[in-house]
Amino acid sequence: MTLQPFFSPRGVAIVGASADPMKLGYGVARNLIQSQYTGAVHLVNPKGGTIMGRAVSRSLAEVPDPVDLAVLIVPSKAMPSALTDCGARGIRAAIIMAGGFREIGPEGAALEDEILRIARENQIRILGPNCIGLLDTHYPLDTTFLPPPLPARGDIGFLSHSGAFCAAVIDWSRQQGFSFSRLVSLGNQTDITETDLLALMAADEHTRVLAMYIESLPDGKRFIEEARKVTKHKPIVALKVGRSASGQRAAASHTGALAGADAAYESAFEKSGVLRAVSAEELFEWSRALAWLPLPTGRRMAVLTNAGGPGVMSADFIETHGMSLAELSAETKEKLRALLPPAASLINPVDMLSSASPHEYATSLQILLADPNVDGVLLVLPPPPMHSTESVADSLIPLISVSVKPVTIALMGSNLVREAWRRFTAARIPTYDFPERAASALACLARRADYLKDIESDSAPALTLDHASIASLLDRQTASWLDPERADSLLAAARIPTAPVKLARTADEAASLARHLGFPLALKIASPDILHKSDVKGIFLNLNSFEEVKEFFNLATRNAKSAKPTARLEGCHLQRMIGAGQEVILGATRDPQFGPLIMFGSGGIDVEGLKDVAFSLAPLTVREADALIDRTWAGRKIAGWRSIPPADRAAVRNALMNLSELVTHHPEIAEIEINPLRVLNEGAVAVDVRIRID
Amino acid sequence: MTLQPFFSPRGVAIVGASADPMKLGYGVARNLIQSQYTGAVHLVNPKGGTIMGRAVSRSLAEVPDPVDLAVLIVPSKAMPSALTDCGARGIRAAIIMAGGFREIGPEGAALEDEILRIARENQIRILGPNCIGLLDTHYPLDTTFLPPPLPARGDIGFLSHSGAFCAAVIDWSRQQGFSFSRLVSLGNQTDITETDLLALMAADEHTRVLAMYIESLPDGKRFIEEARKVTKHKPIVALKVGRSASGQRAAASHTGALAGADAAYESAFEKSGVLRAVSAEELFEWSRALAWLPLPTGRRMAVLTNAGGPGVMSADFIETHGMSLAELSAETKEKLRALLPPAASLINPVDMLSSASPHEYATSLQILLADPNVDGVLLVLPPPPMHSTESVADSLIPLISVSVKPVTIALMGSNLVREAWRRFTAARIPTYDFPERAASALACLARRADYLKDIESDSAPALTLDHASIASLLDRQTASWLDPERADSLLAAARIPTAPVKLARTADEAASLARHLGFPLALKIASPDILHKSDVKGIFLNLNSFEEVKEFFNLATRNAKSAKPTARLEGCHLQRMIGAGQEVILGATRDPQFGPLIMFGSGGIDVEGLKDVAFSLAPLTVREADALIDRTWAGRKIAGWRSIPPADRAAVRNALMNLSELVTHHPEIAEIEINPLRVLNEGAVAVDVRIRID
Repeated sequence: MTLQPFFSPRGVAIVGASADPMKLGYGVARNLIQSQYTGAVHLVNPKGGTIMGRAVSRSLAEVPDPVDLAVLIVPSKAMPSALTDCGARGIRAAIIMAGGFREIGPEGAALEDEILRIARENQIRILGPNCIGLLDTHYPLDTTFLPPPLPARGDIGFLSHSGAFCAAVIDWSRQQGFSFSRLVSLGNQTDITETDLLALMAADEHTRVLAMYIESLPDGKRFIEEARKVTKHKPIVALKVGRSASGQRAAASHTGALAGADAAYESAFEKSGVLRAVSAEELFEWSRALAWLPLPTGRRMAVLTNAGGPGVMSADFIETHGMSLAELSAETKEKLRALLPPAASLINPVDMLSSASPHEYATSLQILLADPNVDGVLLVLPPPPMHSTESVADSLIPLISVSVKPVTIALMGSNLVREAWRRFTAARIPTYDFPERAASALACLARRADYLKDIESDSAPALTLDHASIASLLDRQTASWLDPERADSLLAAARIPTAPVKLARTADEAASLARHLGFPLALKIASPDILHKSDVKGIFLNLNSFEEVKEFFNLATRNAKSAKPTARLEGCHLQRMIGAGQEVILGATRDPQFGPLIMFGSGGIDVEGLKDVAFSLAPLTVREADALIDRTWAGRKIAGWRSIPPADRAAVRNALMNLSELVTHHPEIAEIEINPLRVLNEGAVAVDVRIRID
Repeated sequence: MTLQPFFSPRGVAIVGASADPMKLGYGVARNLIQSQYTGAVHLVNPKGGTIMGRAVSRSLAEVPDPVDLAVLIVPSKAMPSALTDCGARGIRAAIIMAGGFREIGPEGAALEDEILRIARENQIRILGPNCIGLLDTHYPLDTTFLPPPLPARGDIGFLSHSGAFCAAVIDWSRQQGFSFSRLVSLGNQTDITETDLLALMAADEHTRVLAMYIESLPDGKRFIEEARKVTKHKPIVALKVGRSASGQRAAASHTGALAGADAAYESAFEKSGVLRAVSAEELFEWSRALAWLPLPTGRRMAVLTNAGGPGVMSADFIETHGMSLAELSAETKEKLRALLPPAASLINPVDMLSSASPHEYATSLQILLADPNVDGVLLVLPPPPMHSTESVADSLIPLISVSVKPVTIALMGSNLVREAWRRFTAARIPTYDFPERAASALACLARRADYLKDIESDSAPALTLDHASIASLLDRQTASWLDPERADSLLAAARIPTAPVKLARTADEAASLARHLGFPLALKIASPDILHKSDVKGIFLNLNSFEEVKEFFNLATRNAKSAKPTARLEGCHLQRMIGAGQEVILGATRDPQFGPLIMFGSGGIDVEGLKDVAFSLAPLTVREADALIDRTWAGRKIAGWRSIPPADRAAVRNALMNLSELVTHHPEIAEIEINPLRVLNEGAVAVDVRIRID
């Protein structure tokens, strides 16, 4: 069923409209009428009478056409019958604001289930319950009870899991100088979820960016799919709360212990191109920049200022946000030298000195924007001592408005910069209190640009494994950790090379095993009573012939017997020696919202302590596998480091891709951990693996 | 010479006062007169006349007593003679605002040197040049030319290396609702530096916290000393810029490569108890909290809110800022249950629901503050739908004002909360736009409380080394890397155990060396032509007798000859085998501002990649050595982890303390790196060490 009636209803019925200014039913009626909504407004209350001079119908049945949307402001207990009335009247969209449902406990949950049942029976879509409604500043339409006036026409579409947060940020936006195209409070999401609305919000011509406040994403996989479709065309910025409360799940493997629920969210946002803000301010600071500015083609930024201190501060934040200070061209420096006083600094950050006039600000900016080495500009504007800040703003606005490179503004101060702030934001140029914020916004634009570039080259990975044979290996399994030999077979089927350990009971058996394993071999005494095998001289490495294998089988046995006469000896373990190489860990767990989650990084037994690991949800694309490698030191080191020779990156990438394909197509694999994968000059070998089936 | 005249002059002369409102000499005169300064104001200008109805003296010589401070607003070239006039008139304090000195190049620097010489000859102290002066809102005194009015009386003392930043934050403070006790723009600091003013600023009774904007600290050691004296009594918060630009110094050791200049600043601030803010907003957000709120006795915080979303957000930030959500007592929950609606959440974060009244806000807060499990409260206040925000503020202010536990307020919104903001800040209760900021302020208070606790138990380390013998070892050295045997001797003198490697040329020599080294021993073939000794079976471990040593010397030699007949053989290296243990790195470099800097962490050859290291300036206290250990995974792991057995933490601490004492007392040691220090079940041994003498 289409959700369009929620945003462009030809008529709206307010059931429970009230003439009492202290009631929500008054607030909603007032807002809808004052919002300049051009459709029909139907007020419904069994008492009848008039509200704000308009007649009130006594029941929904009396309401004339057209009516596409009902806003139900009745107590929770009256909701089932109100919803049934909607169905009878042929209304297919309802906003339920009342609380008293799932959020208050089992009784409320039962009531919520009932209204969902009634809605389904009557083909009604529900927004809420326990929400503050929605608004569209362009249509215009306001079904909330928030203090008027309706926010100005804006370009940020906002979806929120919290109604209180909506109310606060609408108030905050008025002072900050940005506004919303559409805003939706989702409440308990008994029917409509944030994911259901993504496409519709993005299709709105007035919405240039989607901002989201998210508490959880129960249907995580569908969110990724829907969000990916949107972010190809329009940016999404999200603030996800509940990080710390999410806690860590009980974990048998390192991968499980390290993959708190947040790693999956983090990867879900990356995979879907959603830019993740860490605070409420950042959410809207980024949204403004994304809505109003062009994207940079690189990360080389110029800083333009009239004061040294704020310039240095800005340079810091350019670098801490992963950008670099542009190296200005000789031509740029020449032009700036001709323009500015001799003591001005012509090396980025460009400091025009406190005397900088509106003309100098504008001309310097023009020069910097023309420099091919400059991808964007952070313009720092503390109140100029000799000129009004708004006169500087007036000189800059025409330039920034037509620039194809982004310019963000740190407008430091308050009274002295208020009018300049107003003029900049009216011209859709984002301004920020301090350089850090302006730098963070530029960095967000650069990340968005990178994402758009990345997805061009990204494609779904091709299937390369023999899934029928993997399935037959898994078929015979009960829920448990696989024994080592089965785990080896499964890895082999997933085309991840392993180094199996084999037990030889006699010297002759050792020689015959050696034939299968190949040389060089390591031989180790096998005894449940000998923990430190080197202590008894029970380990020999680099055996290269059948004779050596037999000779050292016997020597190891003699040594062990003489060092520890009581030890039970089972023979010797033989393992093909894997050449010197680097060691990494590969793992996968299964996230309840998002499915299989791949881990990569520095292995060993203290993986959790070093925390040199990165996560990505499966299925991985080749680009994502590469990103996993590049994000960790273990991965970067594969290129070689000081005396550590380079190892086979392609082999690691293949192992990651194969692991991803394995866990994506075989959901019975609950957990898998290869620790270490030894990465050689050529190839890579899983030295140890644990696999849990569920 | 005392700096007191700068802050409490009995009379001030403004040399270069002007009647032209477009000139700085007018602005300064206007500000001083309008600041309600009660001392004598002397206006000086060769033209004479009147300014704002006051007579202007034609020269300093004409100015009557008292005059303790001169503000010189003359062009830079006229400054030497103006300063000479001050000397002649007996003025001992001068503020020089003009630019045109060191900041414009060599000519300016020469002029700056000249005025400093004149000042020294005449016993004049100089603030500036190239600054905007200072102000004291209580005395009151305003020598700046910033737009009036003088900021309100406040309690933050502010020292700034940037004048433009002063101007911007004064403007910003008016809107934010905080103000300054004293504010000083330091300019080029040709004479007076930030360090010179610390004690005087702290001694001011109206100053409750010192805020600093710092670009560099050339005399870093003295800053630490002076700041430590202050922070025992009053908090200091600093924003240090120029992080990224500082870059990395050329580095021969891992320690050098990792210790960018910022590590030294970071440690300097920690050592001196200076709280380091990362942004301009944080600087003053923290300052307000420190000036106005009591310190918590722990980190268990309660969140009180009228809405779920902002509550979850706050809980996140409580945890990301290193605090925890308090476990509320049964009594607290009982009282809250009796007060609040049934659907309210009584588990921290406490959500009173959107209906929360001023009475419920106040009573809930009172209940939380009375809970012994609660160390502080983050109160979240989005505009309540049913009540005015200021009515909630009025109910809370009396409680918070007398609370011995800190309460910070996230006052979300703008128009709807403006009046509440004003009332809270007037009552010296810090309010913040969003929960993140309020949480960050609480965390700052907790850090301050910890610091005060820590310094109680901190004392200068006792000297334990024989410095005479160390000095004699160093005496004979030229600037270079020490050879291994000398490095061993130096470590031994510093009481850091080593595991020296000795070369035996024959089997008999090996046996005789074994007598000195002790067992068990490792024996390795010594040849410049054999890189991988195990490849030629040239390594034998765990040798326990003279016979074994001789036998395996011969075997290693035979094996090497047969595997690589052309290799030049020098004999075998013998090294006492060090038991299994953990490996860490210890290092020290020398910072140009702050002196010796100690590094500790995970060693190996890829130290720079793992970055599991921490830094602290020497000399270390025992608490600081422990903190170095605890800050890294390498250090925490010493307590044992999964199958890794615990190792000797005391031995690591001793090695750190001895290293610290060594580099503190012997500045000719430019760089030292122990990588690894093997930490055993008992004791720790330096396996490899490099020492550079300068």
